[in-house]
Amino acid sequence: MFSIEKNGSLGKLAILTIMSSGEDEADLKRQGEKFGYRLYKGKVGSMDSAKIFAAVETAAKKEGLIDERYREEHALYHSVFEAYNGMCRGQIGLGTVLRSAGLLFCIVRGTKLPGNNNDGEWIAVALYGNMGAPIKGYEHEVLGLGINPI
Amino acid sequence: MFSIEKNGSLGKLAILTIMSSGEDEADLKRQGEKFGYRLYKGKVGSMDSAKIFAAVETAAKKEGLIDERYREEHALYHSVFEAYNGMCRGQIGLGTVLRSAGLLFCIVRGTKLPGNNNDGEWIAVALYGNMGAPIKGYEHEVLGLGINPI
Amino acid sequence: MFSIEKNGSLGKLAILTIMSSGEDEADLKRQGEKFGYRLYKGKVGSMDSAKIFAAVETAAKKEGLIDERYREEHALYHSVFEAYNGMCRGQIGLGTVLRSAGLLFCIVRGTKLPGNNNDGEWIAVALYGNMGAPIKGYEHEVLGLGINPI
Amino acid sequence: MFSIEKNGSLGKLAILTIMSSGEDEADLKRQGEKFGYRLYKGKVGSMDSAKIFAAVETAAKKEGLIDERYREEHALYHSVFEAYNGMCRGQIGLGTVLRSAGLLFCIVRGTKLPGNNNDGEWIAVALYGNMGAPIKGYEHEVLGLGINPI
Amino acid sequence: MFSIEKNGSLGKLAILTIMSSGEDEADLKRQGEKFGYRLYKGKVGSMDSAKIFAAVETAAKKEGLIDERYREEHALYHSVFEAYNGMCRGQIGLGTVLRSAGLLFCIVRGTKLPGNNNDGEWIAVALYGNMGAPIKGYEHEVLGLGINPI
Amino acid sequence: MFSIEKNGSLGKLAILTIMSSGEDEADLKRQGEKFGYRLYKGKVGSMDSAKIFAAVETAAKKEGLIDERYREEHALYHSVFEAYNGMCRGQIGLGTVLRSAGLLFCIVRGTKLPGNNNDGEWIAVALYGNMGAPIKGYEHEVLGLGINPI
Ligand SMILES: [Mg+2]
Ligand SMILES: [Mg+2]
Ligand SMILES: [Mg+2]
Ligand SMILES: [Mg+2]
Ligand SMILES: [Mg+2]
Ligand SMILES: [Mg+2]
Repeated sequence: MFSIEKNGSLGKLAILTIMSSGEDEADLKRQGEKFGYRLYKGKVGSMDSAKIFAAVETAAKKEGLIDERYREEHALYHSVFEAYNGMCRGQIGLGTVLRSAGLLFCIVRGTKLPGNNNDGEWIAVALYGNMGAPIKGYEHEVLGLGINPI
Repeated sequence: MFSIEKNGSLGKLAILTIMSSGEDEADLKRQGEKFGYRLYKGKVGSMDSAKIFAAVETAAKKEGLIDERYREEHALYHSVFEAYNGMCRGQIGLGTVLRSAGLLFCIVRGTKLPGNNNDGEWIAVALYGNMGAPIKGYEHEVLGLGINPI
Repeated sequence: MFSIEKNGSLGKLAILTIMSSGEDEADLKRQGEKFGYRLYKGKVGSMDSAKIFAAVETAAKKEGLIDERYREEHALYHSVFEAYNGMCRGQIGLGTVLRSAGLLFCIVRGTKLPGNNNDGEWIAVALYGNMGAPIKGYEHEVLGLGINPI
Repeated sequence: MFSIEKNGSLGKLAILTIMSSGEDEADLKRQGEKFGYRLYKGKVGSMDSAKIFAAVETAAKKEGLIDERYREEHALYHSVFEAYNGMCRGQIGLGTVLRSAGLLFCIVRGTKLPGNNNDGEWIAVALYGNMGAPIKGYEHEVLGLGINPI
Repeated sequence: MFSIEKNGSLGKLAILTIMSSGEDEADLKRQGEKFGYRLYKGKVGSMDSAKIFAAVETAAKKEGLIDERYREEHALYHSVFEAYNGMCRGQIGLGTVLRSAGLLFCIVRGTKLPGNNNDGEWIAVALYGNMGAPIKGYEHEVLGLGINPI
Repeated sequence: MFSIEKNGSLGKLAILTIMSSGEDEADLKRQGEKFGYRLYKGKVGSMDSAKIFAAVETAAKKEGLIDERYREEHALYHSVFEAYNGMCRGQIGLGTVLRSAGLLFCIVRGTKLPGNNNDGEWIAVALYGNMGAPIKGYEHEVLGLGINPI
């Protein structure tokens, strides 16, 4: 079994959580929480890129992963933007270039390495799913990860 | 335990392999091979982005993951480029913007879903590691994934 | 007269066809078909970039230039995207940056060089026309070419 | 035969010239000169993108296609940059992303349409050739066109 | 006090004007006009990037900063585009990436240096303001400058 | 005279300082320091973009504008990158695209608005100077501004 204590890190926790389900996912969450990580995993699909940003931001606020200050929202926003850029692989756009994305997202807040607070808290946003033509099955996997200090 | 048969896919196999080690990694490989996936995992670190492209291409040829035709090299190259773009998150460059990357890479060739050959073979390239200033510890995790038909 | 046999290639055939009309265009088509090239030339104008993607994709399907599998649609899509990027010259967008494009498009499927099937079939998409402010005459020529194995 | 008077334009002249050779090329030049177009066609191949810029700029100065003022060099430079972006199709770089280009370039200075001086002179730069891995035959065609008022 | 004669230049005049108000702004305008500079300062706020382009273009035409020819509109357009790219800092988009901008813009037409007409007239566009989430106070300053010969 | 108290802000302070000299510059510094702003202004010129990053980072560390933690270096780095992107206006590169930049840089650390600490400290990096061909006088002004929480 994967051990956050031995092999874990902020980004890895976001990616493994987004790729897991059922008991594996629950175990990752439990292990993460032991080291002070706060996680949220949600779902969003759209041809409108703004909806992806909105889904992640709304979830982060509702779940208390960021506080009221703009500096926290800014860290989250740039992490979403980096993840969005990552999954677009250098060619930005969804509906504007006639493609659609069905995604899971995962937000994780905590230290870069478990139990090491020397460099404070960071926020990771992962996006994973399928992107392609707006036709069933005409799609392949995409993945993006953004990380910033918070 | 993660089951490729139940939850697997080409990109997920590349990402989980890059994030695993020891027995977990060996198990992923074994499971993958049962469904005809060919995998290779290697390591590359540099401030020179061309070295990342070279490391992946050299490994793919040496391991027989692509054949002699340009169309195969082209599919691999564009997958590396997409993964490289993904990990750069919209802002291309390593040494030219004074940053360095220490990476693992994973190449996987096979069907998009295990056991489903309707849409032929695809090739996935994942890059995962740390990027940052060329100073020890001044870095955070990055991840990129590129997928193309081959 | 231009001879595909002596000087031709996949991309050149797409570009010369898009720039020709009347008898010259018909002759290019005839010469191309002798070497197994399948061609289609159409027209699209818009401030909405998605319409350009849609026009090319719809034509390719209707004319049988791609089959039902996603890997063929994927090759076409990336060729359109590359051609679109090429005509935007590094600065993506039409209506979002208050400009419009009146375009011809040409899709060609066949070998990279006439009569040489060593490297299989490729698909080329060319876009050519005028781009500028949405005011008559406030525009200049633009051109883009994308090519991928299929 | 192609008639600049009937179907010609600045960009088309640059593209057709770059794709022609022998008598066809000479005829295009003759037709162009009748309408005041000044043309130059040259060759450059490199993994170093700066060499492409240098080859075009040097030729333009030597052939008297631009005068001594920076505003003329600026128009040429941005045309080269647009053509370079066009042929890179949204993903900038040659050697930095382990690829090479063998190119013809064509510079044309004159009116947007033959014989119509209402909107003054413009300068077009076309780049056409093959781009790919630095291995013989591992390449496909690329094309870029940039146009600016001068 | 700032002296255009001693320390001024086209871009600096645009930037200082956009950052000034009241008597300071009026003084910059007076000094600029002595050296033949024509200036206009306006305001635009939106989540729709096209509105920024439209606001600047409309103002330039209404104020007579550009004439009827496309080459003048083209110089202005590319200056706006460069300024827009500058304020977006490599990541294009407003509403499409769920952000909004409240901006001042300043257009200045004249020589690169005061009183030196060797290199003809150029046009500068500056954009300055705040960009951020569409929530009051969730924003930080942004700035862009574009300059082209006209 | 410009009053930081009445009209000032973090980004404006960076921009006005970079554009001032002599007594004006000293006055801005004095006013800024009264509100807790820490400023540094330096100079860098190069065809090698990495040198710009290095010059700003070295100055920030030497002047104590950032502390030892990576999160502070990260905030500075992204501000430099945003400013660099801003001055490149969507088309990244210096020597690689045969151009050079002679720049002033200004780093300012403090609150977004003078005397308002609700949203903590932010760091602004401004780059201002001339960019162009590596030939004397063949250049025009460029400007970039990047701001991040620290
Ligand atoms: Mg970062
Ligand atoms: Mg794809
Ligand atoms: Mg290619
Ligand atoms: Mg233009
Ligand atoms: Mg310029
Ligand atoms: Mg920001």
